[in-house]
Amino acid sequence: MDELKRKVGIEAAKFVESDMVVGLGTGSTAKFFVEELGRRVKEEGLDIIGVTTSHVTHELAKSLGIPLRSIDDVEYVDLTVDGADEVDSNFNGIKGGGAALLMEKIVASYSKKCLWIVDENKLVDKLGKFPLPVEVIPYGHDQLLRKFGELDLNPKIRLNMDGEFLLTDTGHYIIDLFLEEIPNPHELAAFLDSTVGVVEHGLFIGMIDKVIIGTKEGVKILEA
Amino acid sequence: MDELKRKVGIEAAKFVESDMVVGLGTGSTAKFFVEELGRRVKEEGLDIIGVTTSHVTHELAKSLGIPLRSIDDVEYVDLTVDGADEVDSNFNGIKGGGAALLMEKIVASYSKKCLWIVDENKLVDKLGKFPLPVEVIPYGHDQLLRKFGELDLNPKIRLNMDGEFLLTDTGHYIIDLFLEEIPNPHELAAFLDSTVGVVEHGLFIGMIDKVIIGTKEGVKILEA
Repeated sequence: MDELKRKVGIEAAKFVESDMVVGLGTGSTAKFFVEELGRRVKEEGLDIIGVTTSHVTHELAKSLGIPLRSIDDVEYVDLTVDGADEVDSNFNGIKGGGAALLMEKIVASYSKKCLWIVDENKLVDKLGKFPLPVEVIPYGHDQLLRKFGELDLNPKIRLNMDGEFLLTDTGHYIIDLFLEEIPNPHELAAFLDSTVGVVEHGLFIGMIDKVIIGTKEGVKILEA
Repeated sequence: MDELKRKVGIEAAKFVESDMVVGLGTGSTAKFFVEELGRRVKEEGLDIIGVTTSHVTHELAKSLGIPLRSIDDVEYVDLTVDGADEVDSNFNGIKGGGAALLMEKIVASYSKKCLWIVDENKLVDKLGKFPLPVEVIPYGHDQLLRKFGELDLNPKIRLNMDGEFLLTDTGHYIIDLFLEEIPNPHELAAFLDSTVGVVEHGLFIGMIDKVIIGTKEGVKILEA
């Protein structure tokens, strides 16, 4: 599995050229992409600016010597490369398994191109098998759990390794919705967007231009 | 002016009865309501539970001896009383001049009834003369300012007394939109709801049941 992830990470790095502002994703697959970029910066003199999507990626990229700026200190991002938890055939997907969805979505919003790197078991017909992460304000989280429960959205608050409520990089909680299937992602996104107390959710709709997929037969590239 | 605010605050407190869970608003008018409730708790044995909408109100209510619980420790709120910065004839309004819109909206969301207390100069034909507060994630706030600027929404980030970016109780920034007039509040609310990086906005649509207005001729009550 790691070998597949490494392959798509390296493949994605080939789309990066000097003078680009590059969004650096978070997660086990994006990590290989960032490491390959770090190698190219060091060994090939690749001249880029990175914009990170989490504290973890920030620390990794810094340690590799990739020059970094905040999303607020660049005009836009040329290309963001990130992993995903699920992708459907319409190039919509779910992110947030690693709890970094908010910063990932902010960086993706200001990116000219977004590329996702996944292994083939992330490809699905319908989104929803993977629990949908919803980032929420701590004040009122129990009310939201009740509300989502009444709507049969099967909510569970996410815990950290110590069994406490997980806090995101921006100080919010994550409620995972165990839906099994999302019949209409647009409708669910609009509902969550308009729900008071919801900061952001893991549905990425119409944001992705390209998906690089690691399969046992090799690397495949799909364009939107 | 303070005398008018005091009058509507006291008038609103008349709708509170023992055994109620009461949402306690924030701001200069709501303050008089909370103080009157505190008086009734002390002098009349009024038996209520308060749910506060800001740290400031929490401290005030605590000092007055009003029993308090978090919004997550009550089943629902019977009645919330809060001030507002603007109200139109459709009972839609703008809140957030005091930067507490997020917690105010969370408490209002779980309230069976919401009552606003205002002086008559808050009544408007069209919303928007009062700058619309938008609570945003710090990461990406400059991108949002640029985006709102391009859309002619006249954004300005709110500063505190020291000239630094104001931080809300939940650690976010406020961008005020100087719109002069909001032709379609529903449309603007939906746009802001779906904008990545926006936590909440000050448009309260369809949430209010009653408005108590202080006028020079006395107190008027409007029902939705």
